[in-house]
Amino acid sequence: MSKEITSRSADYSQWYNDIVLKAGLADYSAVRGCMVIKPYGFALWENMRDQLDRMFKETGHQNAYFPLFIPKSFLSREAAHVEGFAKECAVVTHYRLMNDPSGNGIVVDPQARLEEELIVRPTSETIIWNTYKTWIQSYRDLPLLVNQWANVVRWEMRTRLFLRTTEFLWQEGHTAHATAQEAIAETLQMLNIYAVFAEEWMALPVIRGVKSASERFAGAVDTYCIEAMMQDGKALQAGTSHFLGQNFARAFDVQFADRQNKLDYVWATSWGVSTRLIGALVMAHSDDGGLVLPPKIAPLQVVIIPVYSKAEQKAQVDEKVKIILEDCRALGIRVKYDDDDSNRPGWKFAEYELKGVPVRIAIGARDIQNNVAEVARRDTREKNAVSLDGLANTVFQLLQDIQRNLFEKARVFRDSRITRVDTWEAFVATLDNTGGFVAAHWDGTAETEAAIKERSKATIRCIPLDQVEEPGTCILSGQPSKGRVLFARAY
Amino acid sequence: MSKEITSRSADYSQWYNDIVLKAGLADYSAVRGCMVIKPYGFALWENMRDQLDRMFKETGHQNAYFPLFIPKSFLSREAAHVEGFAKECAVVTHYRLMNDPSGNGIVVDPQARLEEELIVRPTSETIIWNTYKTWIQSYRDLPLLVNQWANVVRWEMRTRLFLRTTEFLWQEGHTAHATAQEAIAETLQMLNIYAVFAEEWMALPVIRGVKSASERFAGAVDTYCIEAMMQDGKALQAGTSHFLGQNFARAFDVQFADRQNKLDYVWATSWGVSTRLIGALVMAHSDDGGLVLPPKIAPLQVVIIPVYSKAEQKAQVDEKVKIILEDCRALGIRVKYDDDDSNRPGWKFAEYELKGVPVRIAIGARDIQNNVAEVARRDTREKNAVSLDGLANTVFQLLQDIQRNLFEKARVFRDSRITRVDTWEAFVATLDNTGGFVAAHWDGTAETEAAIKERSKATIRCIPLDQVEEPGTCILSGQPSKGRVLFARAY
Repeated sequence: MSKEITSRSADYSQWYNDIVLKAGLADYSAVRGCMVIKPYGFALWENMRDQLDRMFKETGHQNAYFPLFIPKSFLSREAAHVEGFAKECAVVTHYRLMNDPSGNGIVVDPQARLEEELIVRPTSETIIWNTYKTWIQSYRDLPLLVNQWANVVRWEMRTRLFLRTTEFLWQEGHTAHATAQEAIAETLQMLNIYAVFAEEWMALPVIRGVKSASERFAGAVDTYCIEAMMQDGKALQAGTSHFLGQNFARAFDVQFADRQNKLDYVWATSWGVSTRLIGALVMAHSDDGGLVLPPKIAPLQVVIIPVYSKAEQKAQVDEKVKIILEDCRALGIRVKYDDDDSNRPGWKFAEYELKGVPVRIAIGARDIQNNVAEVARRDTREKNAVSLDGLANTVFQLLQDIQRNLFEKARVFRDSRITRVDTWEAFVATLDNTGGFVAAHWDGTAETEAAIKERSKATIRCIPLDQVEEPGTCILSGQPSKGRVLFARAY
Repeated sequence: MSKEITSRSADYSQWYNDIVLKAGLADYSAVRGCMVIKPYGFALWENMRDQLDRMFKETGHQNAYFPLFIPKSFLSREAAHVEGFAKECAVVTHYRLMNDPSGNGIVVDPQARLEEELIVRPTSETIIWNTYKTWIQSYRDLPLLVNQWANVVRWEMRTRLFLRTTEFLWQEGHTAHATAQEAIAETLQMLNIYAVFAEEWMALPVIRGVKSASERFAGAVDTYCIEAMMQDGKALQAGTSHFLGQNFARAFDVQFADRQNKLDYVWATSWGVSTRLIGALVMAHSDDGGLVLPPKIAPLQVVIIPVYSKAEQKAQVDEKVKIILEDCRALGIRVKYDDDDSNRPGWKFAEYELKGVPVRIAIGARDIQNNVAEVARRDTREKNAVSLDGLANTVFQLLQDIQRNLFEKARVFRDSRITRVDTWEAFVATLDNTGGFVAAHWDGTAETEAAIKERSKATIRCIPLDQVEEPGTCILSGQPSKGRVLFARAY
């Protein structure tokens, strides 16, 4: 496979696919809409998952595991939920195969039909709340702070690697509380954790907001979200946190006795992020040379490549690199020495650039004489001769610089893609020209929201949590509005 | 729910279920044969998973993720594999639900029938080898050392929590090699990792062996296994590692060019352990008081319980415990101070005993005056007054003692349940009386093996890797045999 990457200007969508495939993040599979996450992509996901998991546990959450299958009737229990999720689902109808009586491979055994079909979970509120019914009796059982890491399936018609796949990996938190106030606080706490993770670990600036009623999770009272901006000016929802009120508790009859022994329905939240975040990461930082990864989650932070022509030079380099490796590892740096002699240094340079390794160190015999190594940073592509004295410390600092720089670059770009407009013409022109978030007045009705979407393909990404009160008139209807909301075309 | 545990002597099977349910490891679910892994059980699984994952990575394996679904036709590709796995499977036939036209909930949309049914993976050899076809072209792509942590589904008719569930969690390693020798070495390396993990982390002594042809994994050339002995004298297969020869490479046409540019089929292995290990753990160490956990994988290693009547005593205890907690944590001990005043100390003692926490420390105001704490170990139920000076170090040593003691106790028990017999009568009597492994001569034929199973319900657990050459005659057929194999009734 050619390692050539289509440029962003030539074809943004192809550029994205090229990077995902050629950097070895993922691959297509034989199953429509399902992808294979390759080892390099999975190592990236592991770093993301492990950090999120630490943040969940630090805030008192525990992991558990619930069944993959949901009885069909469960989906109908919560009225709004069934509308949102009981559509494009993988449905298990049979539990046995048999040899084809006509001798042609295997067929489904018609005798082995399930009495009630099972749905492969698109999300787990229903099966989990059905379980919580037996776990929660009294206020002593609350709060219940549970998360699960799982695969889910939504039968998507149009799929894109990481961004929208039929099966994807995610985490889903499902918590139960004694009061609405406590559940709302949990919803916002988890939104905040997602935002901190996105910004500090993925170097991805996000806007925290709440969804309009039409964009709410099916079954939620309020859906909070973090929204990110991609390099092509399209927005991407990077995580959601839902305040579910008592909807699922009512649907599954989960009541608790409070301190006064009075029964009430339990208050709920759910919140999730998925492998979609990897798509966001690729589109936020990468360039025409390939993937660019923030050091904090990069599977490999530093690669060292020897440059030599004779065996004795190689021996000199090896000796020096041994010390550098030890020093780096002592600082917790994920470093690899690639001295595989079946590839030339130039090939390796291109390969690690494509894979987005934040720092590349090249070192040859002459460098050792001069007591330096060539250190290249992936984000700016700068190269410098750096003293071998304290090289690991220099690299340690450099990794922090790169992390900061990626965030700053993405933040400056994102901020340059927030445009305030006050007329319908300016709204459409902004979307067509620069794209990005458009901060505009909206009259607050679902009808206008639908009409705007229909005419412009832009949706309300969120009502920002830091929305300023500002009287105005709706860009489409001219009706009064109390503040601007953020519109964008989105992934 | 009553915390009472049925005794092993009264009803071993009920004792097992009581422990799993009442210690909070797992729960039944609304989906037939599927369980919910509760937070305490999942924390245990995380400790087991993380250690195995470290051992896999230390031996050069990388994680990846392959689709949940397998096209039905893939299962037919490998002749033996289809016989073994294309039977009790969850089959996805449709991808959409719709509102029931008669207004009665939701129904499967008959229009949304899949052209080819999808099987929820019972194991992933087929989908993975179909992918490897595109990843492997030359010897440079080998070895390919990949593992995945995943859920799998096998439609079991009789299920038991952890031991046999329709859905379970596991890891499956799938490696590709240039030579048979290298693949066999990998198969044995992974068997060894499983054995070391079982013995050193789970304190579970295992016998390493190879399966008879009838007990082989469907599609394997050789299946190696580790076999453990439970307290009721039944054996439990705790992990398997398969040498697959070139069977899957042939079935999916995966060839590689060697150094001489000659094409050959790739050699394969696969290996797995599952949440079934938790069942083995419960049955190996627990007692009539509840769960007993080896310290190395216990979610909580030490619990500290204050004993006081007045607030000022509590303050004294708190102050002392603060230091003990710090000292314990500095030594990497997983410790919790349970000073929840809504439960009495006696209730807590019973609760942590039930949950198998290896060490319990009780500390009161008088203890502090005497500069001691009461330290109770879960395995032997011994209690001792231990000096507060260097208490954390004492506990650290004690945890190692407990780990060793659990293994030794299980090993002595297991060894007492290996009986050499030379006649059919002794064979049956041993199985009926003491149970355990029966080391007996077998003529090596599948017919005799089947007849023995039919008459005694015992199967050949393995031909031990350390089998001694010893001429003898088959206990059933009287035909010649070269050495003893291990029979047992098994889970």
